[in-house]
Amino acid sequence: MAEYINRLWRLAARPVGNFKDTDFTWHEEPVPALTAGQVLVRNIYLSLDPTNRIWAAQDSYLPAVRLGDVMRGVAIGVVEASHNEAFPVGTFVQGLLGWQLYHVGDGQGLTPIQTIPGQPLLLYHGVLGAIGLTAYFGLLDVGRPKAGETLVVSAAAGAVGSLVGQIGKIQGCRVVGIAGGPEKCRWIVDALGFDAAIDYKHEDVGLALARHCPTGIDVYFDNVGGAILDAALARMNNFGRVVACGAISQYTAERPPTGPANFLLVVSKRLRIEGFIVLDYLPRAQEALPQLLRWVTEGRLKYRLDVIEGLEHAPQAVRKLFDGSNLGKLVVKVSEEP
Amino acid sequence: MAEYINRLWRLAARPVGNFKDTDFTWHEEPVPALTAGQVLVRNIYLSLDPTNRIWAAQDSYLPAVRLGDVMRGVAIGVVEASHNEAFPVGTFVQGLLGWQLYHVGDGQGLTPIQTIPGQPLLLYHGVLGAIGLTAYFGLLDVGRPKAGETLVVSAAAGAVGSLVGQIGKIQGCRVVGIAGGPEKCRWIVDALGFDAAIDYKHEDVGLALARHCPTGIDVYFDNVGGAILDAALARMNNFGRVVACGAISQYTAERPPTGPANFLLVVSKRLRIEGFIVLDYLPRAQEALPQLLRWVTEGRLKYRLDVIEGLEHAPQAVRKLFDGSNLGKLVVKVSEEP
Repeated sequence: MAEYINRLWRLAARPVGNFKDTDFTWHEEPVPALTAGQVLVRNIYLSLDPTNRIWAAQDSYLPAVRLGDVMRGVAIGVVEASHNEAFPVGTFVQGLLGWQLYHVGDGQGLTPIQTIPGQPLLLYHGVLGAIGLTAYFGLLDVGRPKAGETLVVSAAAGAVGSLVGQIGKIQGCRVVGIAGGPEKCRWIVDALGFDAAIDYKHEDVGLALARHCPTGIDVYFDNVGGAILDAALARMNNFGRVVACGAISQYTAERPPTGPANFLLVVSKRLRIEGFIVLDYLPRAQEALPQLLRWVTEGRLKYRLDVIEGLEHAPQAVRKLFDGSNLGKLVVKVSEEP
Repeated sequence: MAEYINRLWRLAARPVGNFKDTDFTWHEEPVPALTAGQVLVRNIYLSLDPTNRIWAAQDSYLPAVRLGDVMRGVAIGVVEASHNEAFPVGTFVQGLLGWQLYHVGDGQGLTPIQTIPGQPLLLYHGVLGAIGLTAYFGLLDVGRPKAGETLVVSAAAGAVGSLVGQIGKIQGCRVVGIAGGPEKCRWIVDALGFDAAIDYKHEDVGLALARHCPTGIDVYFDNVGGAILDAALARMNNFGRVVACGAISQYTAERPPTGPANFLLVVSKRLRIEGFIVLDYLPRAQEALPQLLRWVTEGRLKYRLDVIEGLEHAPQAVRKLFDGSNLGKLVVKVSEEP
């Protein structure tokens, strides 16, 4: 086979605060020849997600990326060479392909994907990817909203939050989103159909929740943790549910978190706070994907993409997740679609 | 009817820290004549419970006791005079009868109880009362332990915790109790059959949990909140459940609580933290009571009583719940059984 030159980012340091350029090192190196059963994937789109910060920092639901290893990341790619009948050349695949141009492996952990007429390949990083499954199962399976209930979602203009709010509307909820800045707030109300938006950078979230949730909060979908979680806890109704999806406000904190001061309300309000990880729901993906695709084609589930050109910009791009500057699903375009 | 002279404690101040004598005022006053439909109950046993501190301090799952009102409390009494056919003279009743000798009301909220041959009337303040229902539904309905799992319970020598641990043993769990001082720790292991006890006053709870829960914690029944909750969170297994029953370490805190610092683990470990209030389970009491009584008569569910003689000592007695000095179900004997 032709010689392939890989381009890749290795994790060089455990991040402190937001990612820095020096947390990664850039390498260009030849790809070793494939052995029996192996497959070579050319990455096309690399997904950047808040959980990348967890993977780089410490063991959690997955072991931490080892220093010196290729940075872990979900990507969509195409099979360019194959000694594995399950993955013929030309197959699109998705998996933990890493922050690199070429992935070589035995096919374990790769999921073949099929292009959908009229839909971009990138749908698999959004509504039909981890983002969509996170929103679907997190809201419906963990949060269990009922029509007429009030749903509040934080990081509401983010990749997950924007889908959660729209699925909440489809379920008949009153939906209030919390986002940073007027542009994001306008987008979730005007384009996505949220009932109200709270700009946490310019409003007192507690007062705004009281105003926009006159009958209290039944389901709070938490992507941020910290002070906003506390403000939501204070407004929860009895038997309310907190879907603990993430805590982005805490991932880059340099001081240990203090935990929600309003935690005592869990008893008196009989709250259920439940964490989940989308990986646990992958075996049930087929419950969600046809429905999610239907909502997209019907125009009931809208999304935005924030596509950064060039793998070399991944370290700068990933920082946008933590400084609030990205809008929509953040993706790095690593190479051209075939 | 004869003139009855009531003796009662009114709430005089919102408590700060533990209760003080000056938070209550003592009154002796004639009971007004009964009107149509009314019933007069002579209180026999007044239950003192950690939640009394919540009732005195602020609105929560029940409105706060108003300053100047008779202090709220669950009691067992006997009907001494009645203009209500549902409650003939001589009926034993239980309900929110208050910190007083005589309760007058229309019967709303009173539950008739029947003496059980061979069992003391006080069983209705323990295994067959709110305590027993709290342990039963909190552990089985909220915590859902499976045989072979590890259950940890705090305030394990307390009225609720001691029953929780024993029910956990009946379910086939490994049970580790956390209590204050060697006497309580000995009691839960030697008399109640817990697998291990941790003396939080003399041991590092985190290290002791690691030692006594070698396969991690599956269910943590939390009666105390605070630092012990944090230590338990750190040792929870994936998909672990925290039964949020109470947070006695926080009730008398004079500084605002900071919340569990290990809260971030809720997501990565997919924890479920769920609060509950036994009042919500009263309609289902008949699911639990026959089983609880059977376990008592079989000797599988043991309990201790801490009976203080005389209503006049209620303010001193209730403090024992918060300074760790009581062992077993705390009760004030208000008057003699008939």
